Amino acid sequence: MRVRALWFSHGTLHLVDQRELPGRFIVRPLRRVRQVADAIRTMVVRGAPAIGVAAAYGMVLAEAEHSYTPGRAAKLLRATRPTAHDLAVGIEAVQAAWAAGEDPLAAADRYREKIVEECHRIGTAGAPLLAKARRVLTHCNAGALATVEWGTALAPIRVARDEGADLFVWVDETRPLLQGARLTAWELARERIPHAVIVDNAAGAFMRMGKVDAVIVGADRIARNGDFANKIGTYEKAVVARENGIPFYVAAPWSTFDPRRASGRAIPVEERSEDEVLEFTGVRIAPRTSRARNPAFDVTPARYVTAFVTPAGIIPPRKLAKTLAGARPS
Amino acid sequence: MRVRALWFSHGTLHLVDQRELPGRFIVRPLRRVRQVADAIRTMVVRGAPAIGVAAAYGMVLAEAEHSYTPGRAAKLLRATRPTAHDLAVGIEAVQAAWAAGEDPLAAADRYREKIVEECHRIGTAGAPLLAKARRVLTHCNAGALATVEWGTALAPIRVARDEGADLFVWVDETRPLLQGARLTAWELARERIPHAVIVDNAAGAFMRMGKVDAVIVGADRIARNGDFANKIGTYEKAVVARENGIPFYVAAPWSTFDPRRASGRAIPVEERSEDEVLEFTGVRIAPRTSRARNPAFDVTPARYVTAFVTPAGIIPPRKLAKTLAGARPS
Repeated sequence: MRVRALWFSHGTLHLVDQRELPGRFIVRPLRRVRQVADAIRTMVVRGAPAIGVAAAYGMVLAEAEHSYTPGRAAKLLRATRPTAHDLAVGIEAVQAAWAAGEDPLAAADRYREKIVEECHRIGTAGAPLLAKARRVLTHCNAGALATVEWGTALAPIRVARDEGADLFVWVDETRPLLQGARLTAWELARERIPHAVIVDNAAGAFMRMGKVDAVIVGADRIARNGDFANKIGTYEKAVVARENGIPFYVAAPWSTFDPRRASGRAIPVEERSEDEVLEFTGVRIAPRTSRARNPAFDVTPARYVTAFVTPAGIIPPRKLAKTLAGARPS
Repeated sequence: MRVRALWFSHGTLHLVDQRELPGRFIVRPLRRVRQVADAIRTMVVRGAPAIGVAAAYGMVLAEAEHSYTPGRAAKLLRATRPTAHDLAVGIEAVQAAWAAGEDPLAAADRYREKIVEECHRIGTAGAPLLAKARRVLTHCNAGALATVEWGTALAPIRVARDEGADLFVWVDETRPLLQGARLTAWELARERIPHAVIVDNAAGAFMRMGKVDAVIVGADRIARNGDFANKIGTYEKAVVARENGIPFYVAAPWSTFDPRRASGRAIPVEERSEDEVLEFTGVRIAPRTSRARNPAFDVTPARYVTAFVTPAGIIPPRKLAKTLAGARPS
C-alpha cells in the first residue's frame, strides 16, 4: 500500500499528522478552513505540493461554511506560509471555480489528481537518471507525505526501484524538524528500500569519499532563471555536490515553478520560531540566555542544478525560462 | 571566572561532565586510569587537546595504582578514541617521564600548562584576524571545554573581545551530539559574548547572504600537508566558505599536528554508534527498521584552509610542512 498524505471524504479533510511520525500514525479530520490554515502553519501537513492540495480542500471547506467569500478564504490560507509557491496555485485552482459558481470540490479533486499524476510522471522521467546511480542522497522529505502520493524527489527512486534498480538512499536527517529521519526514512522503511540516516553534517563527507552517485531534492519555489528555494541545508548540499562532480537534480510539479519571479532574490524565505532549534522533544538544548536563528529554507542558485525533473521530462536550468514561457506541457 | 574543563588535586582528576551541559554542571572525580579511559570513550571529556590532558593525568593515576606498566597504561588510554592526535601526545609526555623514573604528576602538570599557554598564544595570534571580522562562525566546540582553558577556535574570539572588538558568533549546533548548541553557546553565554545558535544546515545560507565574515574551527589531527580532521560537517563548511570567498581558519596547539601523517588519507576517522543519530534524549527519532551511519569526523583538504592559527602565529598551508620539519617553535 502506497503512502498518502491526505484524503477528502464526507465533507472532511483527513491529514496524516506529520509531526507525530514515525512514532505514531494519527489522522486529523478537519471540517473548517481555519483548522486547515492552522494545520498548514503548524506543519501537521508540510511539503510544497501537499500544502497546495490541503489548501485547495481548505477552500472547499470554506465554501461549505457559508461565511467566507472566495477572496477571504484565499487570504486566510495564503497567509499560513510564505515560501511554497504551490500553496497559492492550489488555492487559486479552487478560488477560480468557486467565484465562477462551479463546484469547489470537483476543482479541488481535479487539482489533487493533477498533482498526483504529475508526480508519477516525474518518477517516470527521473528513474533513468537514477538507474545508473547506485547510491542517491536526498535532503528533507520530498516523498508521498510532501506531495499526496509518489513524491517529487522520491518518485524517481520509487519508479527506478519498481523497475528493478538496486538503489541505496542516503537520508539527511534534516534539522531542525528532522523530516528526513522521521518522514523520508519512514516512507523508505515501509517500502523496504535500503537506506541509512545521516546527520546533515555527514552528507559532504560521504560525497567526498565517493559514496554518493547523485543527489535529488524537491523544491518549494523555483524562479524563472532556475534559482530555487528548498529546505534549509539544500544550498550546502548543492555546493558540495558540484565540488565533487556529483549530479544534483531538483524534482517538482508545475505548481512549484513561479515564472513571475525572475530569480532567487525575489523568493520570500520564511523564518520560523527559534524554539525549533533551541528545544528538542520539550528538552532545552542550549543555555537559557542563548538565542537562535531559524530560516526554514535557503535559496540555491541555478548554476548548481544539473537538471530539473519535471512532468514533461528533464530540463536543464538554461532551458527553463523558455519552457516556462511556452505553454506548460502538462 | 574563565571556564576550565578539568583539574587535578589530591590524587584525583576532576572532569566537568560535558554530556550534562548546559542543563547541569556536574564534576566527576576519578581516581583510577580505567575510569579516565571510560570518561574519554563516553565523551564525559572531549575535544582533542582536553582528552590529551585528561589522558596525561590518567597515566598519573595508573602509576599510583601500582598494577600498570607505563606501556600497558598508555595502551589502555590510546585505545579510547582514534582520531585526536593530542591523545597520543599527552600520553607520551607522561609515559616518558614515568619510564625514566621521574615524577609523572610533574610531567602531566607541565603538559597541561603547555597546552593552556599555547592556547593563550593562539588567542593572541588569531585575535587580529578576527578584529576585522564582525561576524565569526564556528563549528562544534573548540573552547575551554575542549582544551582545558581558552580554547583553540574560541581563544582568538576571547582575546579579540577582551581587546574591545565587537564580535558576534554564529554557533553551528553540531549534530549529532550538539557540542555547539550545548557547549560553545554555554561558554559564550557565560562570558556574555553575543551569539546565535543555528542548525548546521543554515551555516551555508548565512554565508551566501553575506552574514559571515570569517570561519574558525579547531582540529583533531592535522597532517603534514595541512589536510585536517575535525568534527563531522567541518568539510562542508570549508567548501561553502571558499565558494563564498570567506576566510577559513584552523586553530590548534602543536599536539594536534601530526608530521608523521603525510596527508588526510592517513588520518583514522572514528565511526561511533548509530544510536547517537537515531535517538535523542532517549527518544527514537527514526523508524525502528532504519539504520544510520555516524562518522564522528571528516577530513578537509588543505586547499580549503586560509591559514592555521598556531602558538607560533599564522601559518598558511603551503608553509606548514617546512614549519613542522624545523624545530617546533614552542
